[in-house]
Amino acid sequence: MTNGPVVPTRAAVQARHPISDVRFDEAGLLGSWQRVNADQTIPHCIAQLEQSGALGNLWRLRDRAIARRPPRFSDSDLYKTLEACGWADTAPEFVTASTDLLACVQEPDGYLNSWVQGGDADRFTDFAHGHEMYCAGHLIQAGIADARTTGDTRLLGIGRRFADLLCELFGERKRDIVPGHPEVETALVELYRQTGAGRYLELAKRFIDLRGRGLLDTTVTPAEYFQDHRPVRDTTSITGHAVRATYLAAGATDVAVETGDVGLLAVMERLWADMATTKTYLTGGIGSRQDGEAFGDAYELPPDRAYCETCAGIASIMWSWRLLLATGKACYADLIERTLLNCLAAATSPDGRAYFYVNPLQVRSAGFAAPGPPVRREPWHGCACCPPNIARLRAALHHYVATFDGSGVQVHQYFAGTLRHDGIRLVLDTRYPWDGTVTFAVRDTPPSAWTLTLRVPAWCAAATVRVNGAPLPATPTQGQLAIDRIWHVGDTVELVLDMPPRITRPHPRVDAVRGCVAVERGPLVYCLEEVDHAARPFEDIVLDTAGPARTVERPDLLGGTTLLALRGRLNADPIDITAVPYFQWANREAGAMRVWIPA
Amino acid sequence: MTNGPVVPTRAAVQARHPISDVRFDEAGLLGSWQRVNADQTIPHCIAQLEQSGALGNLWRLRDRAIARRPPRFSDSDLYKTLEACGWADTAPEFVTASTDLLACVQEPDGYLNSWVQGGDADRFTDFAHGHEMYCAGHLIQAGIADARTTGDTRLLGIGRRFADLLCELFGERKRDIVPGHPEVETALVELYRQTGAGRYLELAKRFIDLRGRGLLDTTVTPAEYFQDHRPVRDTTSITGHAVRATYLAAGATDVAVETGDVGLLAVMERLWADMATTKTYLTGGIGSRQDGEAFGDAYELPPDRAYCETCAGIASIMWSWRLLLATGKACYADLIERTLLNCLAAATSPDGRAYFYVNPLQVRSAGFAAPGPPVRREPWHGCACCPPNIARLRAALHHYVATFDGSGVQVHQYFAGTLRHDGIRLVLDTRYPWDGTVTFAVRDTPPSAWTLTLRVPAWCAAATVRVNGAPLPATPTQGQLAIDRIWHVGDTVELVLDMPPRITRPHPRVDAVRGCVAVERGPLVYCLEEVDHAARPFEDIVLDTAGPARTVERPDLLGGTTLLALRGRLNADPIDITAVPYFQWANREAGAMRVWIPA
Repeated sequence: MTNGPVVPTRAAVQARHPISDVRFDEAGLLGSWQRVNADQTIPHCIAQLEQSGALGNLWRLRDRAIARRPPRFSDSDLYKTLEACGWADTAPEFVTASTDLLACVQEPDGYLNSWVQGGDADRFTDFAHGHEMYCAGHLIQAGIADARTTGDTRLLGIGRRFADLLCELFGERKRDIVPGHPEVETALVELYRQTGAGRYLELAKRFIDLRGRGLLDTTVTPAEYFQDHRPVRDTTSITGHAVRATYLAAGATDVAVETGDVGLLAVMERLWADMATTKTYLTGGIGSRQDGEAFGDAYELPPDRAYCETCAGIASIMWSWRLLLATGKACYADLIERTLLNCLAAATSPDGRAYFYVNPLQVRSAGFAAPGPPVRREPWHGCACCPPNIARLRAALHHYVATFDGSGVQVHQYFAGTLRHDGIRLVLDTRYPWDGTVTFAVRDTPPSAWTLTLRVPAWCAAATVRVNGAPLPATPTQGQLAIDRIWHVGDTVELVLDMPPRITRPHPRVDAVRGCVAVERGPLVYCLEEVDHAARPFEDIVLDTAGPARTVERPDLLGGTTLLALRGRLNADPIDITAVPYFQWANREAGAMRVWIPA
Repeated sequence: MTNGPVVPTRAAVQARHPISDVRFDEAGLLGSWQRVNADQTIPHCIAQLEQSGALGNLWRLRDRAIARRPPRFSDSDLYKTLEACGWADTAPEFVTASTDLLACVQEPDGYLNSWVQGGDADRFTDFAHGHEMYCAGHLIQAGIADARTTGDTRLLGIGRRFADLLCELFGERKRDIVPGHPEVETALVELYRQTGAGRYLELAKRFIDLRGRGLLDTTVTPAEYFQDHRPVRDTTSITGHAVRATYLAAGATDVAVETGDVGLLAVMERLWADMATTKTYLTGGIGSRQDGEAFGDAYELPPDRAYCETCAGIASIMWSWRLLLATGKACYADLIERTLLNCLAAATSPDGRAYFYVNPLQVRSAGFAAPGPPVRREPWHGCACCPPNIARLRAALHHYVATFDGSGVQVHQYFAGTLRHDGIRLVLDTRYPWDGTVTFAVRDTPPSAWTLTLRVPAWCAAATVRVNGAPLPATPTQGQLAIDRIWHVGDTVELVLDMPPRITRPHPRVDAVRGCVAVERGPLVYCLEEVDHAARPFEDIVLDTAGPARTVERPDLLGGTTLLALRGRLNADPIDITAVPYFQWANREAGAMRVWIPA
C-alpha cells in the first residue's frame, strides 16, 4: 500500500507517483538524520511539549488550575510531533495517550482548539490570526500519518470530525471565509485522498477560490501578508509571509491536481519559477525580510538579514515535491535537494536537539554585530513551529526521494539504502553528498523492460553512467538520464556526478551580494567561519577566485566533513581560507560566518 | 538675548556658542523651507492635529463623549507643533488656545497625559513603552520655544509643573526609573538652562546615570532596543532604536557639558564617530533595520530596506549640533549638512504638506517590488511623530548654522541671509547648494580684530577664498578656514567651494552596495529615477564611471534643480543616464529609484 504524506489519487493530474517503500541506511547522511530524528529529536519534542505548556494547554480543558501558555497555536506543536511519530513509527504510548486526551477534550460537534475552548477567544471570530484551521490542518495530517503507518484510525477520526464541522460551517453555500494561515488546504486534500470523501476536497478548493477576495481582516497585517490581496489564479509573483505563501501554494497545487485544474497548476508552476529564480537564497532558504517573515522584492536577498525561516524551507520542499509529482520535472527535485542539504540541514544541530528558527547567510563578528544573544541553535523557541516541523519532515524524508510511472522508477535524491516498488528492489550505495558516485544494485526485477531514471542535478557539469561496467552515453534530457532495458538481478548501475569545488557568481540583479562569490561543491553550499581564520578582521577577507581550491577530508571534524582549502587576501596579504559546508556551521565556537565572499 | 533650542550656560563645557540672530532670505533654499514651513507645514500640522484625534484626546479629558484615538503618545504631536509655532513665531491664537486647554486639563500636581488621564493606563506603570516622559519632554521644549520667542511663560509653566512632579517622584533618593523613550533628558537640561533651577539638570543626569541597569521591562522589546543593556558611560557603539539612541545621546551630551563631565563627553564623541563611520547612510540617514526601527551591525547599510526614519535624521542633527557646540569640530557640521540636505530634505514634499516616515536609498520598479502601496510622501501618518518634528526643526533651522567664541564668528552652514552678533552684521549671498560660491558682506563690525571662520566641507577638494578680491591662502585646518583681521564695513569675502560631479565609492565593508558607486555634487547626493530612463529594466542600468558627468541646470523642473548627465550601459548598449538630487526624488510619477548604482 502506498504510504507517505502525499498520496495523490489515481484520478489526479500526476506525471509521477510517490514510491513509499524506501529505507535509508543509517550510515548515509539522510539515514543518519532519520536515526537522530527518531532517537533524539522526537523524544526531545515530546519532552518540550510538556515543558512549554503545549500539552498543559490541552490538559487544562479538564483541569482549569493549569495556566494557559502562549502561543495560541500551541496545539499545532503537538500535532506536528504526532505526525512525526506517525511517519517514524515511534513513541506509540505517547501517540495513544495524546489521542486519548484529544478524544476527551474534543467538543461533541468536532471542534477542538485549546485557545478557544480555554476561554481566551470565541470560535471562528479571528480568521486572520486565530490559527484555528491551521491547527486543524496539522491535526488531520497527524491522523493521516498515524493511520497510514499503523492502521489505527482513532487519531484520524478526531481530525475528520473537526473537518466535518468545517465542511458544515464553511462548505458550499455556507459562510465565505478563508484561514489566515494556510495549512488546512493540503490536509483536507489528503483527507479526501485517505477517505475518498469529496467534501474535503471541495472545501479545500473553496478556500483556494475564496482567497484574495479581501475576506481577511487587515487591521494588524495588510492583505498581501496572508496572500489575500489577489485571487490565487491571478497570482504572478510569490509575496507576503513565506510560510503562509508556500503552504497555500502546496494546497493550491493539491487542489489543482485532484480537480484536474491544469490552469491552476500552470499558475503554480509559474509562481514556483518566480520564487526559485528571484526570491530563493543559494541555500534554498526563502523569506528575505525579518518584518512580516516575508518574501521581499524580486532579487532582494540580503545575506545578513535573511530570514529563511526553517518552516519556510520545509514548506518549500513540500510544495516542490507536489509539483515534481504533477509534472515530473527535475527542477523541482533540484530545489528540494538544495533546500534539504543546505537551509534545512543547517537548522538542526548534529545531536538533533537544537534548532535555528532563522537561517542567515552571514553573521558579522562580535566587534561588528549589533548587541543581542549569540547566533546559535536553541533547544526550543517561544514560537515553536520549527522544531516539530523538522521532526515531521525528517521522519517522512524517505517518502520524498523516488517516484514511479508507467515506464519505471525515478530516483530524485541520492541516498544509501533500499528502494522497493512493484517487484523491483534496488540497493543504493553512496557517500553522497560527500562523494558523487552512486551505485545501484538490482536485487529484484520483473522480467519485462523498465526504465531507471536518474536525476542529473543542475549543478553537475559532467555526469557519467555505467551499466555493469559499460559506459552509456550520459547526456541527460532536462536533468534526467533514462536507462531503459530488461534488467536482471545482479545488474549494477554506477552514476558518477563530478563535483569539483566551484565558484558561484550571483545574478547581477541581486544587489546585496554584488561583487561577491560563493563556493559550492556538489549539492553543498560552503561558507567561511571565523573560527577557521586567525586573520582579522574576518569581515575584510577577500577570496582569490583564480586561486586553487582543494578538498580536504576531515572525518575527525564536525562528525565528518569535507573542507575546501582556498586562497585569498586580507588587505594586501595572501592568506589561506577554509570553507566548511554551510549546513555544519555554528557547531563550534560562536563567531562570524559568510556564504557570499568578496571577490 | 540668545535664543534657539539649545542655549548652554556660560558655565558649560563649550568651544562655541550658538548665534541666534540669523535670518534666511526666502530666495535661498533654507529660507524657502522656512517660508513653506510657516505658511504650509505648520497650518497643515494644526489641521491634522484636529483630524487625527490628537487634540480630541486632550479635549476628551473635559468631554468624555469624544473617543480616544491612538497612539498613546499623541500629545507629543501637539507639543512638537507648538514648538514649531514658537520658533517660527506664528499661529499665536493656536498657541494660546492650546495653552488654555493644557492648563485646564493638567492635574493639580502637574501631571499631564491624555492617555493616562483618559483612563487607558495607570500613571507611571509602563516606563518601557508608556511614553509619559517622552510627551513631557516635548511639552517642556514647546514651552521653552514659546517663552524664548514671545516672552510668554504660560506654556513653559505647564511643562515646568510637570517637570517638578518628575523631580519629586524620580529625583535623587526617590524611585529609580528611566524613560523607555528618551527625550525628556534634553528638555530637562534646557529647562535648567532657561530657569537656572539645578534640580532639572540633576534629574536629567540621573536618567543618564540610571540607564543601562536593566530598569526597563524587556517583555516586549529587548534591553538593547532602548539602550538599557549597558550603562551610557560604557557604551562604545550606537545600537537599538535609532531615534531613542540619538535622543539619549543628545541628552547625555547636554548633561556632560553642563556638569563638566568631560569623560562622558568623550564617550559621546566616540559614540558619534561609531555612528558616522559605520552606521550612517550616504544621505545622512540612520537606522538600517525595519524591525525595531533600529541601528544594525557595523556597515549593515542596505539601501532598499534602509529605515532612515525622518525623526532619526532630526535627532542626529540635534545631537551633532550639541557636539559641534561642545567641541567646535567641523565633522559635526559636515554630518548636519549631509543629513539636512539629503535625508531630511527628501522627507518633505515641495509644498510642505506631505512627508516620508522612512527614507530608503533604493526602490525597485513595479515588476520587481513586493506588493504594497506606492512609495510616496503622505499627508500624515498613523504614528505621526515625523511631520511635526520636521516642522519644529525647520522652524528652528536658523539656530543651527552659526556660532561664536571669544575670537569671532563661525559659519557652519551656508545660506542666503543675514547674521548678527555682538556688533557684527554679515550678509551672505549664495545659490548654495546649487552653486559653491558664497559671498559675505560686512555691514557692521566692531573696530577691533575678529576672526571669521568658514567651514570647508569634507566633500570639497578645492576651496578658494578672496577678501576684497585678493586671494588668501585657503588651506583649511581640520575643515575650517579662519580669516583673522580688522574688518571694515564694506569688506567682502568670497568663498568658492569647487563642486564638480563626483563618483563616491562605498567603504569595502558595506556588503549591501559592494560593486556600486554613488554620484554626488557638493553637499547633494544624487539618485537615478525610473521616470528619467526609458531603458528597461531600470534595475539593469550600469554606470560608466569613466564617462563624462555634466551638470544641466533645469530651473523649470522640480521647482528648480541641477541635473547630472552621465553615461552608462544597459546590457551591452550605451545609454544616457540622468541623475537628480536625492532630496527631490518621488516628486514626479511613482517609480524606481536608486542612489547606489552598479558600476
